[in-house]
Amino acid sequence: MRILIANDDGIDAVGINTLAQALQEQYDILVVAPDRNRSGASNSLTLTRPVQPTKVTDKYYRVDGTPTDCVNLALSGVIDGQVDLVVSGINHGANLGDDVIYSGTVAAAMEARHLGQPALAVSLVGNTYFETAAEVVMKLLDDAKSLTLAPGILLNVNVPDVPYSELKGIKVTRLGYRQRAQEAISAQHPRGLPSFWIGALSEPHDASEGTDFHAVQEGYVSITPIHTDMTCYEAKQPLDAWVRSFDL
Amino acid sequence: MRILIANDDGIDAVGINTLAQALQEQYDILVVAPDRNRSGASNSLTLTRPVQPTKVTDKYYRVDGTPTDCVNLALSGVIDGQVDLVVSGINHGANLGDDVIYSGTVAAAMEARHLGQPALAVSLVGNTYFETAAEVVMKLLDDAKSLTLAPGILLNVNVPDVPYSELKGIKVTRLGYRQRAQEAISAQHPRGLPSFWIGALSEPHDASEGTDFHAVQEGYVSITPIHTDMTCYEAKQPLDAWVRSFDL
Amino acid sequence: MRILIANDDGIDAVGINTLAQALQEQYDILVVAPDRNRSGASNSLTLTRPVQPTKVTDKYYRVDGTPTDCVNLALSGVIDGQVDLVVSGINHGANLGDDVIYSGTVAAAMEARHLGQPALAVSLVGNTYFETAAEVVMKLLDDAKSLTLAPGILLNVNVPDVPYSELKGIKVTRLGYRQRAQEAISAQHPRGLPSFWIGALSEPHDASEGTDFHAVQEGYVSITPIHTDMTCYEAKQPLDAWVRSFDL
Amino acid sequence: MRILIANDDGIDAVGINTLAQALQEQYDILVVAPDRNRSGASNSLTLTRPVQPTKVTDKYYRVDGTPTDCVNLALSGVIDGQVDLVVSGINHGANLGDDVIYSGTVAAAMEARHLGQPALAVSLVGNTYFETAAEVVMKLLDDAKSLTLAPGILLNVNVPDVPYSELKGIKVTRLGYRQRAQEAISAQHPRGLPSFWIGALSEPHDASEGTDFHAVQEGYVSITPIHTDMTCYEAKQPLDAWVRSFDL
Repeated sequence: MRILIANDDGIDAVGINTLAQALQEQYDILVVAPDRNRSGASNSLTLTRPVQPTKVTDKYYRVDGTPTDCVNLALSGVIDGQVDLVVSGINHGANLGDDVIYSGTVAAAMEARHLGQPALAVSLVGNTYFETAAEVVMKLLDDAKSLTLAPGILLNVNVPDVPYSELKGIKVTRLGYRQRAQEAISAQHPRGLPSFWIGALSEPHDASEGTDFHAVQEGYVSITPIHTDMTCYEAKQPLDAWVRSFDL
Repeated sequence: MRILIANDDGIDAVGINTLAQALQEQYDILVVAPDRNRSGASNSLTLTRPVQPTKVTDKYYRVDGTPTDCVNLALSGVIDGQVDLVVSGINHGANLGDDVIYSGTVAAAMEARHLGQPALAVSLVGNTYFETAAEVVMKLLDDAKSLTLAPGILLNVNVPDVPYSELKGIKVTRLGYRQRAQEAISAQHPRGLPSFWIGALSEPHDASEGTDFHAVQEGYVSITPIHTDMTCYEAKQPLDAWVRSFDL
Repeated sequence: MRILIANDDGIDAVGINTLAQALQEQYDILVVAPDRNRSGASNSLTLTRPVQPTKVTDKYYRVDGTPTDCVNLALSGVIDGQVDLVVSGINHGANLGDDVIYSGTVAAAMEARHLGQPALAVSLVGNTYFETAAEVVMKLLDDAKSLTLAPGILLNVNVPDVPYSELKGIKVTRLGYRQRAQEAISAQHPRGLPSFWIGALSEPHDASEGTDFHAVQEGYVSITPIHTDMTCYEAKQPLDAWVRSFDL
Repeated sequence: MRILIANDDGIDAVGINTLAQALQEQYDILVVAPDRNRSGASNSLTLTRPVQPTKVTDKYYRVDGTPTDCVNLALSGVIDGQVDLVVSGINHGANLGDDVIYSGTVAAAMEARHLGQPALAVSLVGNTYFETAAEVVMKLLDDAKSLTLAPGILLNVNVPDVPYSELKGIKVTRLGYRQRAQEAISAQHPRGLPSFWIGALSEPHDASEGTDFHAVQEGYVSITPIHTDMTCYEAKQPLDAWVRSFDL
């Protein structure tokens, strides 16, 4: 099995290199990742210029583009042949709740799913025990054949930042959500122009039992199934009633 | 009522200016949009540098950032006070099916929803009759009070590119999906380096009745309810069974 | 005569538009300018991606690149035919002394000279009387035929920010120089990362008689001949002596 | 003596690392370089956003900015104290003749000179024998004390791409110049938009004896003194005569 590894922290990040190290012991790997930190890139695609994959070493390519560009190019086959599965990560820091909307790491997995490949996104809830997350991925892949998921679904995995032996287990979760993000912060422009840092993420608002926030707080690996179809089917009926009242 | 207008085609685009023109006749407006074309920006946030809102004319601000940055800043209140509702668009070209994952226009509406404001994204399936789309928005807003949607839901509106009088009506739809995107295309780098344009979108794969693709093909305005919770609840059960087999 | 107009403040700036307005009454013009503010771009060329000239209106093209890219493309003939002379500006603010090293406006003129066309860079020492600078340019061009300069030399023109009738005259000057630039300023990164605004320009250190600083302070238009050959011929002899002592 | 090392090929380039390796055996070094390839950056400064120096390892910092930003920040003292001298390079490829106008490597040395520090720029005329260039730098620095140059002058050193033992010697040179750059090349935009790669450099036009081109072709190290004062003093007299004819 040939596995494509991508991320959003960039090809030099500890997370992706820990993952690649672990996976290459059992699998054929291909690493295609951004040349710099692209956290917060979401599913953005580079459309106004070409992107350039540069071979770093055997099986490692860096791209001057987004995580989504990396996966798109790699699955186009123009870099170095085809792959069977995509793992995105190990992200430095959690991707919980509404984080997934902005995350380039989750987006890379989503692009893979979108292009027909099974995919998972893996994040470490911290910056220390990347080996723990790598071991979790190995475990999941061991058994991957026994899991059948509908097309258009990917797995978002968050791993507590503890030694592997201290993990409590795995929980299947739903996404929680954070409180409204913090306010923008002035960047003290030297010539007095308005200039702001986008506000940081807030604490969770919904971290109740069943959420990904709750699982990792309790010491469990959280796995949330994510779908690429963003239709809200439950809202169709009230909308239908509303629309019928229109006289266009 | 004060309405924030954003988009991803940039503040000079015909679409956003047609929309602003129409809305300002009945509403107090605030336009905050990217300084250039940011199509394909998805929900990306600018995290590595501050962003700068620049006043262009009264009520018009351009930002050197993404559509999501624009809405985030505007709803932070640091630009010019608060707003009650957000309309993103009029996008030049459709945002149908899986387009919504990459669209900066839909992302701007999602950011609004995320920060607690009602929001709709509007796209013209073409580049000619922007007035038609503007009139549809006016119509929807007229009746907005009679519609109650759960928090976390936004409306994705696509309008056929025809005169208003030729619209067939409105349909509430689900997202269809396109075929796998086209392959990356060589950009003919002058020094022979590998360099690729990301492949263009493909034709629809699922454009059956009930989808947004189908509605606009038939001449109807398509309204799809989109949710910001990407959990796939139906997949939780099979995943649960799988996970239980693990001995972590 | 067909004149190419470029700048570094971007195609929407008041300066370039005031200049274009004035020149088109007597000349055939072509405006090719950056799509945004590229102050401080110096002679930088875009080498890692293609650049895109976009037609804005008849005779106006914006480019997603540097001032040097704009002139390079325009003189390549790929945008809209050939030109006979290049005027860069009217820059918002002075380009005096060591400013010329960083200035994109001066660089645009230098690129023109480099590609074989006569060129001048024009800056307003302020932000108000752009018409004054435009009138000065008209005056200089009227008499351009009677001036012969060696290839590789361009003119750097700075105009005091006063009504035309208040100009004292024209002085040919040498470049003065500023004091060491101010220190970098912390940008208050929200997560505490080191992040700095490059320090602003300092006051002049050498603004003695004969310099461009002195001329504009006294109310004169300053014209400095600039060459593209940066060899310091006077330093060759001491260097030669030094090098001869080496035993490579 | 503490030496700042910068370049324009980025902190991962072989050239800068070969240089740092060699210099650290005799000197205290500080490496501050762009996080990616910034060839062609010229003296451009980043003015629209803050730049971020990131510590990579002890004495190594990468900056998300231009070569000039790197030197400006480092000499501001905000990164890691002060330095006594700046060496920029080893550039991958020659910086001969008019190349110096566009070169970020030469610009880094110029910024140093501008901020009051002695500086030299070093380029390898090829991509193989970086050790040769490093040895040349060591040799020059050995004897640096015996060389006194006026402020505002920096040295542009180009080293033939051969083993050290095959160097013919050192020549003090003037800048030659290349022929007009090649035409822009279409980048085959997938949606047919005009999109061009800036044309490549041409062959030398003036590579006669005494020029830097000639020296390296003959197997010599070329050292050209470069000044930061771009006034063309010889052109002042004809200009003066011309200007006197004006009736402003």
